[in-house]
Amino acid sequence: MPLASNSYGKSGIRLVKLARLGGPHDVLDLTVAVRFEGDFEAAHSAGDNAGVLPTDTMKNTVYALAKDHAAGEIEGFALALSDHFLRENREAARVEISIEERRWNRIADTAFEGSTDERRIARVTGSRDGASVESGLKNLLILKTSQSAFSGFKRDRFTTLKETSDRILATSLTAIWTHDAAAGPFASWEGVRRSLLDAFAAHDSASVQHTLYAMGEAALADHSGLSRIRLTMPNKHHLLVDLSPFGLENENEIFVATEAPYGLIEATVVRNGSQPGR
Amino acid sequence: MPLASNSYGKSGIRLVKLARLGGPHDVLDLTVAVRFEGDFEAAHSAGDNAGVLPTDTMKNTVYALAKDHAAGEIEGFALALSDHFLRENREAARVEISIEERRWNRIADTAFEGSTDERRIARVTGSRDGASVESGLKNLLILKTSQSAFSGFKRDRFTTLKETSDRILATSLTAIWTHDAAAGPFASWEGVRRSLLDAFAAHDSASVQHTLYAMGEAALADHSGLSRIRLTMPNKHHLLVDLSPFGLENENEIFVATEAPYGLIEATVVRNGSQPGR
Amino acid sequence: MPLASNSYGKSGIRLVKLARLGGPHDVLDLTVAVRFEGDFEAAHSAGDNAGVLPTDTMKNTVYALAKDHAAGEIEGFALALSDHFLRENREAARVEISIEERRWNRIADTAFEGSTDERRIARVTGSRDGASVESGLKNLLILKTSQSAFSGFKRDRFTTLKETSDRILATSLTAIWTHDAAAGPFASWEGVRRSLLDAFAAHDSASVQHTLYAMGEAALADHSGLSRIRLTMPNKHHLLVDLSPFGLENENEIFVATEAPYGLIEATVVRNGSQPGR
Amino acid sequence: MPLASNSYGKSGIRLVKLARLGGPHDVLDLTVAVRFEGDFEAAHSAGDNAGVLPTDTMKNTVYALAKDHAAGEIEGFALALSDHFLRENREAARVEISIEERRWNRIADTAFEGSTDERRIARVTGSRDGASVESGLKNLLILKTSQSAFSGFKRDRFTTLKETSDRILATSLTAIWTHDAAAGPFASWEGVRRSLLDAFAAHDSASVQHTLYAMGEAALADHSGLSRIRLTMPNKHHLLVDLSPFGLENENEIFVATEAPYGLIEATVVRNGSQPGR
Repeated sequence: MPLASNSYGKSGIRLVKLARLGGPHDVLDLTVAVRFEGDFEAAHSAGDNAGVLPTDTMKNTVYALAKDHAAGEIEGFALALSDHFLRENREAARVEISIEERRWNRIADTAFEGSTDERRIARVTGSRDGASVESGLKNLLILKTSQSAFSGFKRDRFTTLKETSDRILATSLTAIWTHDAAAGPFASWEGVRRSLLDAFAAHDSASVQHTLYAMGEAALADHSGLSRIRLTMPNKHHLLVDLSPFGLENENEIFVATEAPYGLIEATVVRNGSQPGR
Repeated sequence: MPLASNSYGKSGIRLVKLARLGGPHDVLDLTVAVRFEGDFEAAHSAGDNAGVLPTDTMKNTVYALAKDHAAGEIEGFALALSDHFLRENREAARVEISIEERRWNRIADTAFEGSTDERRIARVTGSRDGASVESGLKNLLILKTSQSAFSGFKRDRFTTLKETSDRILATSLTAIWTHDAAAGPFASWEGVRRSLLDAFAAHDSASVQHTLYAMGEAALADHSGLSRIRLTMPNKHHLLVDLSPFGLENENEIFVATEAPYGLIEATVVRNGSQPGR
Repeated sequence: MPLASNSYGKSGIRLVKLARLGGPHDVLDLTVAVRFEGDFEAAHSAGDNAGVLPTDTMKNTVYALAKDHAAGEIEGFALALSDHFLRENREAARVEISIEERRWNRIADTAFEGSTDERRIARVTGSRDGASVESGLKNLLILKTSQSAFSGFKRDRFTTLKETSDRILATSLTAIWTHDAAAGPFASWEGVRRSLLDAFAAHDSASVQHTLYAMGEAALADHSGLSRIRLTMPNKHHLLVDLSPFGLENENEIFVATEAPYGLIEATVVRNGSQPGR
Repeated sequence: MPLASNSYGKSGIRLVKLARLGGPHDVLDLTVAVRFEGDFEAAHSAGDNAGVLPTDTMKNTVYALAKDHAAGEIEGFALALSDHFLRENREAARVEISIEERRWNRIADTAFEGSTDERRIARVTGSRDGASVESGLKNLLILKTSQSAFSGFKRDRFTTLKETSDRILATSLTAIWTHDAAAGPFASWEGVRRSLLDAFAAHDSASVQHTLYAMGEAALADHSGLSRIRLTMPNKHHLLVDLSPFGLENENEIFVATEAPYGLIEATVVRNGSQPGR
């Protein structure tokens, strides 16, 4: 029976690189994944491994190339890996390199703090026709305490939700943006992050969808090198606690933060005139 | 700027239903997600919520419809939810219902044990043109201790892996199969699961890819109502411990189980003559 | 400044041992922790490592001793490790060995399924005066749907909970029992587990405390070799969903399972006449 | 059969309080646990709930008292809760209140970022004789890249570890300090945290134990109101990658960060002259 699609690779490759040239040290802390798609049908149907580069070799390659290429922006290292694997493996039609970076804050010249859950991410998808480069972030927990409403929504016989003009809006943001192949150097990661946060903080929100769109629009407006941005915003609900049984009023002051269920809002905003498909 | 795509919904809706008719009780333990795609641009660009059914209402609807429809196979409940939401929401072009079921083993007429990580899953994607129905399982941890080799693979200057004719093969299986719209009643979930496990146990494996394919082929061969199956098999590596520094031999007896890095193997097998695309 | 206490060791030592003698294989899947307490003050205050066995050596020792000693009940392997470390390290006043076992179910002679979260556990604490041996289980998710009430409780001005004579009782059980040093061979692990589950299923429960005590009492009554048992039972609340806004009745049929907040109930039951302290 | 010990309470009470007085808002994000010990034997042995305050009432009480008492340092709120429960429940001999605080960083007057895993913690244990107050932090991920060695350790036939004078030292720090009942106002949480981090960064480390002790000693030396401090420092190993098979040298530059196994180092440092026991 035919294979409709297949892929294989190595995930969870943990790499810490120290730059210790003279003065203060620098720490680069990455988790890398390598993924091949291509002509691997003989491996599946006949157990023929002649064209299969072991995933263990992929791991070794990441470490070996880190020596020369893991420095500066992670997009560059991802491109170097993608180029290497495509050049050396004619069986692979497509190579995807994903990198997550944990960012360490300096507390002294050679000491660092890295407790954040937020990750910078990069994904390069290389093929015989070129490479697309995406950058992004995930697990960025943000919350706003004003200018957040939800009202005027559709109602049916199962609707019990009250309208509100003043609620907490909280989310764990994932954002992935695509760099325009025709543009110059990559837009600054810190710059795009700043655009997203500023829009989140300033927006007069009618819904998560409304704020998500404003954030995406701001990122594209501020950074001409981006062709599109995809935002995922789970709605981390904060519910007002009913204190009336205890003779107390709750004037939007005491909330319970809930994990489940949660709203899940996703959308991709594209630059006017660019192609919505890839 | 245009929206290239958008979706919203409620995830993590936890539902336990007791059937307590006379004799032994039955427990149905589900986690449901509802997701709409469609014409919601005014919500994004203008903050106009008139067409937006609150995700809180989606949750209420799941509980209300559970009273009549959550019984028997979970695919039926998913179809009932999808039909309801499409009928009541002309804004939604597409409604996706995902259900995960935790299965409880009976230990007495009214007592149960449910420690397994494995989940039965169903996903119905309904549109104005009809519905596609997928079933599956995830987090099924399986391991085989014979008939597993990996040799004859491609080598380059970064390859250090030794060939082996006798290794542990372990994975946490995710499998999703699509029911053929033209076929009769859904293939039995237990039956497909059994086909996958039997093929895994019996296969003389040259690689994870090789065994994955054999499992997919077996599922399609045994169950004519399936049109395709997608398998995801992370390779949970078990490495031989080197005991030679202690003057001991390790004859494929003592292993360390590692979490990272891990191989990640995925493929979709389709029925001969069926369409590889949907 | 003085050290009031100190300990060190290696945790998370993953060990899989295959027994492949002729017929069907057997898999033993353990996670081991080693912990020393003793005279290690020079290491702390002066950086003097002369008495410090590296935790890496502890790991190596677990693998090396597994060759001969990891077989049968895990308590035996823990005792062998504790004896070894005490004999070889006069600096250690106390050695604690903790083992968690993942149990794999056979699906064929050389294939296994191991998706359960439940773990069998053993803990040996050895000193110059002898060893105490504890056995147990954790993450055993159990639920009962009848004979569970909670009423007649204390009320104050913050009490809003309704009394109930019919609720779901669910917990993730942890149980640790201590073997009586004067008794013969260890009580069967499966036997104690069975006593706990039978008591849980059969008990007419007035509260989690009430059932916890009945389970502990049953284990001690059924197994004379146990001197005490400690039970931890988080109350995994299942709340009745209010369907009345939709014109529906909920006759103890539809529940939402919540993760937080949760009740947490713990107690130690001891055999009459034995010493409550160790 | 007698109860050797028992406790019950409510864990995972999630509370977010907004202070929105005029200018910039403030967010207090807490997870609270309440735990009673005392005379609850009738509940266990006879199912008599007359003395049992429901854990649901504990939760309600936390929300109600948050209105007036959740402000400023979390130790104050914990003391208010402990006092309340002891006063209202003569059955409780001991009440323990544990609070974990997620700290949100301001990104605008009414917007915040809270991605860190680090938690500030407080624990008050109140009894009829008074209360002890502990403060601390957990999940503080720190790493140093110089002045870290491990050599001169004990060797036996299972020792293969190489000595090193230059390794990465990384840990996820948990620290709990006890306030001296006779001292004045509580030592500043930020101050103790700073002492710990400064000592970690500056220490010339011969081992994790050595640095742990230096950190504890610094905290006690800098803050006279502390009577003791307990530190838990898992050794998050960073292993040098062997690049020699690829003809490359690794001059302490490329590391793999591992999760398991891990060293686990714990000790309590007390002030000279104070009582090591409580």
